[in-house]
Amino acid sequence: MPNRVRVFAPATVSNLGPGFDILGLALARPGDLVEAETRAAPGVEIVAVTGASVLSTDPAKNVAGVAAAAALRRLDGRAPGDPVTPSRGVRLWLHKQMPLASGLGSSAASSVAGALAAIAAHGATLSKHDLIACALEGERAAAGAAHADNVAPGVMGGIVLIRSYQPLDLISLPVPAALRVVVVHPHCEVVTAEARKLVSAHRFDIRQVITNLGNVAALVDALHRGTLDQLGRSIADALVEPLRAPLVPGFDAVKQAASDAGARGCSLSGSGPSVFAFAESETDAARIGAAMRAAFQSAAHLDSDVYLGPVNTHGARVL
Amino acid sequence: MPNRVRVFAPATVSNLGPGFDILGLALARPGDLVEAETRAAPGVEIVAVTGASVLSTDPAKNVAGVAAAAALRRLDGRAPGDPVTPSRGVRLWLHKQMPLASGLGSSAASSVAGALAAIAAHGATLSKHDLIACALEGERAAAGAAHADNVAPGVMGGIVLIRSYQPLDLISLPVPAALRVVVVHPHCEVVTAEARKLVSAHRFDIRQVITNLGNVAALVDALHRGTLDQLGRSIADALVEPLRAPLVPGFDAVKQAASDAGARGCSLSGSGPSVFAFAESETDAARIGAAMRAAFQSAAHLDSDVYLGPVNTHGARVL
Repeated sequence: MPNRVRVFAPATVSNLGPGFDILGLALARPGDLVEAETRAAPGVEIVAVTGASVLSTDPAKNVAGVAAAAALRRLDGRAPGDPVTPSRGVRLWLHKQMPLASGLGSSAASSVAGALAAIAAHGATLSKHDLIACALEGERAAAGAAHADNVAPGVMGGIVLIRSYQPLDLISLPVPAALRVVVVHPHCEVVTAEARKLVSAHRFDIRQVITNLGNVAALVDALHRGTLDQLGRSIADALVEPLRAPLVPGFDAVKQAASDAGARGCSLSGSGPSVFAFAESETDAARIGAAMRAAFQSAAHLDSDVYLGPVNTHGARVL
Repeated sequence: MPNRVRVFAPATVSNLGPGFDILGLALARPGDLVEAETRAAPGVEIVAVTGASVLSTDPAKNVAGVAAAAALRRLDGRAPGDPVTPSRGVRLWLHKQMPLASGLGSSAASSVAGALAAIAAHGATLSKHDLIACALEGERAAAGAAHADNVAPGVMGGIVLIRSYQPLDLISLPVPAALRVVVVHPHCEVVTAEARKLVSAHRFDIRQVITNLGNVAALVDALHRGTLDQLGRSIADALVEPLRAPLVPGFDAVKQAASDAGARGCSLSGSGPSVFAFAESETDAARIGAAMRAAFQSAAHLDSDVYLGPVNTHGARVL
């Protein structure tokens, strides 16, 4: 009987305020769990999906299956996106343990977990760069384009800067030891494709651009220095947040509540509706999370889930 | 007879590729020299201007005079831009030792030198923040708007990040010890106001913005790590250089020559026509400067001056 491996891949917060499409970080929780076994037949089989009834068990229509197939092709020495069946086979069980369409990189978590589980079931390893390339095939299947700002931190852990997409140039940024992340997920949905279209259809004035350039530069500087007050001042987005915030009921009130409770910056997580904030301690994080949750309730009558913790510095891993 | 002080303020390179309006650095040379003496009558007198026949000796029409008056008002406890005559008086001699309209912050160098000389003649000091605010009055007189990306490095030295203009939030970035700057000034002019208009009238696509966000973040990371290869990859500007480069004859050939000669990045200095490049050593800098100079000659039949050296880490100073 084949050995079964279990892989956890974390939820991720992308953009981090000023860094649209170029910054992301990994959370300690939530995340997705994928189990995998080898099988004799080539290709990927998805035996079961738990935790999300809308997801397909067709491996060509499930990002975990798409990414797993890409990873097996990589083991064959092929390009991850090569449209051929890999020579090896795996069976997958996908346990969704995080919300879909939440702005927390749900498809990226499944993609990363699927790719890593397929590799691990065969007792093999891939470089992080290769693993990211394989998981990006899952993202491409989900979003029509391969955005690395969830997949890269999901694989690498920590806070990741994507300097360039062509060629892919990834930089792990320092994570201040005291830094805590608060994520509040209100029970509503933002369709990522629509949120992206708002941005791609827009044309930006140089003044807006200058604001984000200054803030993203100061954000990186603050991570190197460990100055969380400067980090907080740098979490300001003049480009994308003004376009997307109207899609999230209560956003302004939640952001104000985070600030009043002492947050070191607050903005949308990815395309929302989740909202993240930074904090200087566990205690601060708990107080900020409670204030944000209360604001979603009072301003928009929305229940929400709160996740608190340090940045996940190891990324996806075999359990 | 009053004591005469002499002040040197350096030329500066702004933008540094991806950092439009938010990054600047100070050069070892060229720069401007201002001499100053107190006088009994209140207000500023410009006794002489050498090195630039087009500049006025009317202190209200010369940025050194405007900035000097602002600095004297600051000594009175007033706002630098307060439209009143200061209670103290100075006489100034402005020695332009750098080209006008060169993209090297000529008006900023005169403003900074004027403000610091006026203060020093009275045996007083101002904080760097106050000195910058006073010099910005000179910039406002020259350009109609107060851009700090030349003035701030001129005062502070080093490489300066302007996170925010309102309020002014300045951050000194680390300067890698091996870093050398090459600046080549071709003998032609770009009118700053026209070069700015090209940018302010333009609307930018998010893809262009993402390119600059990734590069400016990686640039700051590279300065902290001292990784000059990464710094070089980060000197890429998808926003402004494509609009302004056509104003500089031979730019593409000069940039290619810099790259071929081993430059760690090359772009316009400010609004041009000067072009800067980074290098890893004095030897590399000399080779790169010669190659860029030759390219201006062969591609555009333009003579040019080459300045080489480390980043000026002390900024403007009393000699």
